[in-house]
Amino acid sequence: MLGGACTYIALSASFFTKSRIVGVVGDDFDPQDEAFLASRNVDLEGLEKVPGKCFFWSGVYSKDMNDRETLVTDLNVFADFQPKLPESYKTQPYLMLGNIQPALQRDVRKQMPGARFVGGDTMNFWITGQRDELLATIKEWDFLLINDSEARLLSGEYNLRRAAAKIHEMGPQTLVIKRGEYGAILFRRDPELGDTHFIVPGYLLQEVFDPTGAGDCFAGGFVGYLAEKGFDLETGHINAKELRRAVIYGSVMGSFCCEKFGTERFRTLTRADIDARFEEFRKFTEF
Amino acid sequence: MLGGACTYIALSASFFTKSRIVGVVGDDFDPQDEAFLASRNVDLEGLEKVPGKCFFWSGVYSKDMNDRETLVTDLNVFADFQPKLPESYKTQPYLMLGNIQPALQRDVRKQMPGARFVGGDTMNFWITGQRDELLATIKEWDFLLINDSEARLLSGEYNLRRAAAKIHEMGPQTLVIKRGEYGAILFRRDPELGDTHFIVPGYLLQEVFDPTGAGDCFAGGFVGYLAEKGFDLETGHINAKELRRAVIYGSVMGSFCCEKFGTERFRTLTRADIDARFEEFRKFTEF
Repeated sequence: MLGGACTYIALSASFFTKSRIVGVVGDDFDPQDEAFLASRNVDLEGLEKVPGKCFFWSGVYSKDMNDRETLVTDLNVFADFQPKLPESYKTQPYLMLGNIQPALQRDVRKQMPGARFVGGDTMNFWITGQRDELLATIKEWDFLLINDSEARLLSGEYNLRRAAAKIHEMGPQTLVIKRGEYGAILFRRDPELGDTHFIVPGYLLQEVFDPTGAGDCFAGGFVGYLAEKGFDLETGHINAKELRRAVIYGSVMGSFCCEKFGTERFRTLTRADIDARFEEFRKFTEF
Repeated sequence: MLGGACTYIALSASFFTKSRIVGVVGDDFDPQDEAFLASRNVDLEGLEKVPGKCFFWSGVYSKDMNDRETLVTDLNVFADFQPKLPESYKTQPYLMLGNIQPALQRDVRKQMPGARFVGGDTMNFWITGQRDELLATIKEWDFLLINDSEARLLSGEYNLRRAAAKIHEMGPQTLVIKRGEYGAILFRRDPELGDTHFIVPGYLLQEVFDPTGAGDCFAGGFVGYLAEKGFDLETGHINAKELRRAVIYGSVMGSFCCEKFGTERFRTLTRADIDARFEEFRKFTEF
């Protein structure tokens, strides 16, 4: 079925702004999936189609949905993927780099010299296996979005405040640490305010149907909302309040993702649903 | 050293209101510990002293402080404890029952027929071993304070919203589910508002020195603050906003508890420190 980080990030961001994807699919890519993405105002000019099969992953979740076991990973056409940005992408100000080899992430960043707000995701595999490449890559990032175990592995610190302080030294002044069902923490080193943090609890779903892609949907909502209104391109300044709201919108999008199988929830979701859940976050956290 | 649920609850509550303890110690109880409790305005009339040794517990925490292994539990004088309330206690409106045998909790509750806001704690041992006794006991409670695994075990539901709905059916219309470092959730079934919930994330300490007693300090702050100002004895009505603030004060007291060994932090803590941390909670959660 339709999936992959690029798909989830772009679909999620598309509720806030036009999103442009760079990715690769095989000749088995379903035209209906392509039509769905296009219908969501996702620009597919950077979607490369090559002979062969699409990337494929399958897995089984634990009963509490907090762990998963991979059954199959077939890289297929993804194995030789070298992202090439269309000309029309190169002047865009916002860049979200999905979880691929750090060297490829850096290469994409180089193709967008004018980008003003750049960041991405990574994983344990690169943190331990290509640490130097990864450090050279995130050094240039404005933001990093990772989960708590990745933050601990990257920083060598168990305590998240200490982990965040070390990661700020590595480059990203904005760090979002995702904690699964427990929500997320935004850490920010601000030239004027110093080190600050913002914590949002996870949304309490009545049922978690499928958490696949929730972290990527978080990223799409976070960057999509900032692209919509949180970032001043003239000054390069991020409004601190909007940054917090972006974390809430990220959480909102991650929660919707879990409600149905795969990307299914995004076929019926509306911006009004999203804004209503944003208000729910306010109601269950205010005191 | 000084410890036990009763000590932590009473010490924590004493920053908000006068607290009165019912408990038992042996003849090895340190007079300096007694003087410390008295200096914190804890009424010790209900502290029974009997020949023998105090209850003793020791354990080792995991490196991440999320698990602990018990090394020694010596019940000593606690084995035959039958709580008897002094006359001066029996007309008090607030009752917080620490984690002991459900039948004993019920017996204490009977000694305070006029109590208006009653609740307590329990644990897996009673949930599985004395389930019927426990259900008969909590049926009469206004509030229940337990952790997430206990809520799941008690309700038979993994999902916390469903677990809370089942627990409301068992009696307590106010339920606080503690989640350790991830904070707490207040669930409330209100005759007018229906089912509502409030989520507070955990305070991010720079260092967790000793989490022993943190849950009990949460309980003390929660009930202590409600006794101070959140509960209208005339109408029996709880102000919903004050109930949320009580959860924050509970979280604040739990976080201070972890900063030093045992009850040490409460020797220097001030109400101003507590209110300042309450404001910190507002700052790191508002958006």
